[in-house]
Amino acid sequence: MSAQPLADLRMIEGSAFVAAPLGGMTLAQLGADVIRFDQIGGGLDHKRWPLAPSGESLFWAGLNKGKRSIQVDLRSDAGRELVEALVAAAGIFLTNFPARGWLAYDHLKARREDLIMCALTGNPDGSSEVDYTVNPATGFPWATGPRDLAVPLNSVLPAWDVAMGELACIGILAAERHRTRTGDGQLIRLALSDVAFAMVGNLGRIAEVQIGGQDASRDGNYLYGAFGHDFGTSDGRRVMVVALTGRQWTAVQETTGTAEAFRSLESVTGHDLSSEDGRFGARDIIAAVLRPWFEARTLDEIRAAFEGTGVSWGPYQTFRQLVEEDPRASEENPMFNTIEQPGIGSYLMPSSPLELTAAGRVPARPAPALGEHTEAVLADVLGLAGAEIGRLYDDGVVA
Amino acid sequence: MSAQPLADLRMIEGSAFVAAPLGGMTLAQLGADVIRFDQIGGGLDHKRWPLAPSGESLFWAGLNKGKRSIQVDLRSDAGRELVEALVAAAGIFLTNFPARGWLAYDHLKARREDLIMCALTGNPDGSSEVDYTVNPATGFPWATGPRDLAVPLNSVLPAWDVAMGELACIGILAAERHRTRTGDGQLIRLALSDVAFAMVGNLGRIAEVQIGGQDASRDGNYLYGAFGHDFGTSDGRRVMVVALTGRQWTAVQETTGTAEAFRSLESVTGHDLSSEDGRFGARDIIAAVLRPWFEARTLDEIRAAFEGTGVSWGPYQTFRQLVEEDPRASEENPMFNTIEQPGIGSYLMPSSPLELTAAGRVPARPAPALGEHTEAVLADVLGLAGAEIGRLYDDGVVA
Repeated sequence: MSAQPLADLRMIEGSAFVAAPLGGMTLAQLGADVIRFDQIGGGLDHKRWPLAPSGESLFWAGLNKGKRSIQVDLRSDAGRELVEALVAAAGIFLTNFPARGWLAYDHLKARREDLIMCALTGNPDGSSEVDYTVNPATGFPWATGPRDLAVPLNSVLPAWDVAMGELACIGILAAERHRTRTGDGQLIRLALSDVAFAMVGNLGRIAEVQIGGQDASRDGNYLYGAFGHDFGTSDGRRVMVVALTGRQWTAVQETTGTAEAFRSLESVTGHDLSSEDGRFGARDIIAAVLRPWFEARTLDEIRAAFEGTGVSWGPYQTFRQLVEEDPRASEENPMFNTIEQPGIGSYLMPSSPLELTAAGRVPARPAPALGEHTEAVLADVLGLAGAEIGRLYDDGVVA
Repeated sequence: MSAQPLADLRMIEGSAFVAAPLGGMTLAQLGADVIRFDQIGGGLDHKRWPLAPSGESLFWAGLNKGKRSIQVDLRSDAGRELVEALVAAAGIFLTNFPARGWLAYDHLKARREDLIMCALTGNPDGSSEVDYTVNPATGFPWATGPRDLAVPLNSVLPAWDVAMGELACIGILAAERHRTRTGDGQLIRLALSDVAFAMVGNLGRIAEVQIGGQDASRDGNYLYGAFGHDFGTSDGRRVMVVALTGRQWTAVQETTGTAEAFRSLESVTGHDLSSEDGRFGARDIIAAVLRPWFEARTLDEIRAAFEGTGVSWGPYQTFRQLVEEDPRASEENPMFNTIEQPGIGSYLMPSSPLELTAAGRVPARPAPALGEHTEAVLADVLGLAGAEIGRLYDDGVVA
């Protein structure tokens, strides 16, 4: 086992909520030294739900694993000076704070010519936006949910924040690569609305409007453009079944004993079920033919029947069922370890989903306590002496 | 303007559907030479919906922008030999094909000692899974939708595929960085279920079950743990309004003239609306108080009233409304260009949401036609002579 791939990379993170913290954590989980600074007492996301019974934020703990934390009075000149010095020393700065004034790229660059700064914003013009306000604009909430629902449906997963946090990592690694080759740093700009609207385009939905002339209509739990649907089981569970490829379609028919029924239906209805288009056009009929097979079986019976058949399917689970029933979300999976998070308790924590085999998996590490590394960071990153550090604590500049 | 940050990076992509193609495209959009190989006639995703009236896939065109394409008969020894030679020459290989047999890492590594290979799978054991089967297992579909709905709700956005494609880029860039420093290549493993279940943990949902003892219940379009909700307008539109921070909550009250009503409600109900918890607990009341203000106004009137106030809000739009009404999804936004996609037509295409300012934005580039670059790639990557290339075409090994 050799060192982690990013073990020699250090960055400063000034952040709140999902995207920027996730970006920093993603790099920390690959070995980078990620130092998050917060206002003394914690930033806007320090008590974000879900909360532990102790009142500590499970959300904050989840998105800051493996980082170092320093608390600084950002309202004081001395505190801002310290953060500027840290940014200059580390040479990489990720933030979703407003990149102006003392956090403007040009201002920080004056202290470190080859600075890499990744500045996340809501909109490209720098105005504010969160996942919950961008997502409604994308079109997806009007395309989600039962056919007869009259209102759009929000996503509970902040998918655009997730995508943005990861894109920030890509930008930083690309810029760092460029700096290694040329010596030049740069500013990286990334807007949440751009992340979202680019993906609407990437998935063909902009072209569908402009070329196809169609707007998407909501279609319940059906898969778009092939066959996929959910079914109830005899024990009150639900499963999702997908027949995107020809092989998957054959497997479903064979396993459920419906091949002959579908052959008859093809000749009666004229749908060519061997094509994705045909399966999509006949999706209601296909679902109706398959439904009794599922409703006559328990989830375990379905699982046993599908084992090794090539059927593409999966059970619906609540978060609790995921944790209690699915071995993929347990310590049987080397990505997960049960770890003590100070102030909260012991629970299952993921490390990076990426397994870079040369170094092996880094086990999950808990999030820091706020300010846990203030003293260490001032000493080892800025080289401050003990007396100076003591004075900063005494003056309330750090904590 | 200097060269793109990844202009000297070349990789081979063997892929289908969303995650692997998106990963390759993300790097291509930063300047990498990404060569996608496909079976002659196209792979499983070549006709994936949405489709253009011409029958061409808008989905495929969307996820392969800016790549080079070669068509190879992957069922022939000579075709496989060519792909192996390309992988060895490029030194980086991204795939979601089964990484066994001729595509096994150890087999390919024998031809290129420092190969970097990123192998995407459904589950960590290599078994198959797609976004539409993994998402049901995460818990999110049971947490999505109206409170009284009896069935889980699928996501129309393949968010896990998106996250996986971007994580693949992070893995490749981290491994390439490691190779630059040490000379060593490596295999990167990444499973879709790991991507999804890690994020369930990162967002605090695993801890909430294990520490909080709670399972999430669905809550319509309310934001979790603070105030956020949707409202209808007098012209039949809908908007989302969020009051996560204290500043946002103040802005909503001031703009809608409801501050006094909420002060009375606080004393009557005992909810402390200045706290996130308090706003979450009183979310139904808050929504009921705010609703008439929205229902009395058009979307344009609401937009004008909120301008510059710090209210966090956004309109719901269908895909069509996004394209037709939102200047952020138009050529006013430098991320978008109207581009001719051969065989389909001219439409609005996004480039990378990442703006690395040293090089500037790369304008959007269309997807290749299948096999558009077969001859060029065989010549410039493998150094084959014209006569050899001609023979490969004649023998049906390439097209």
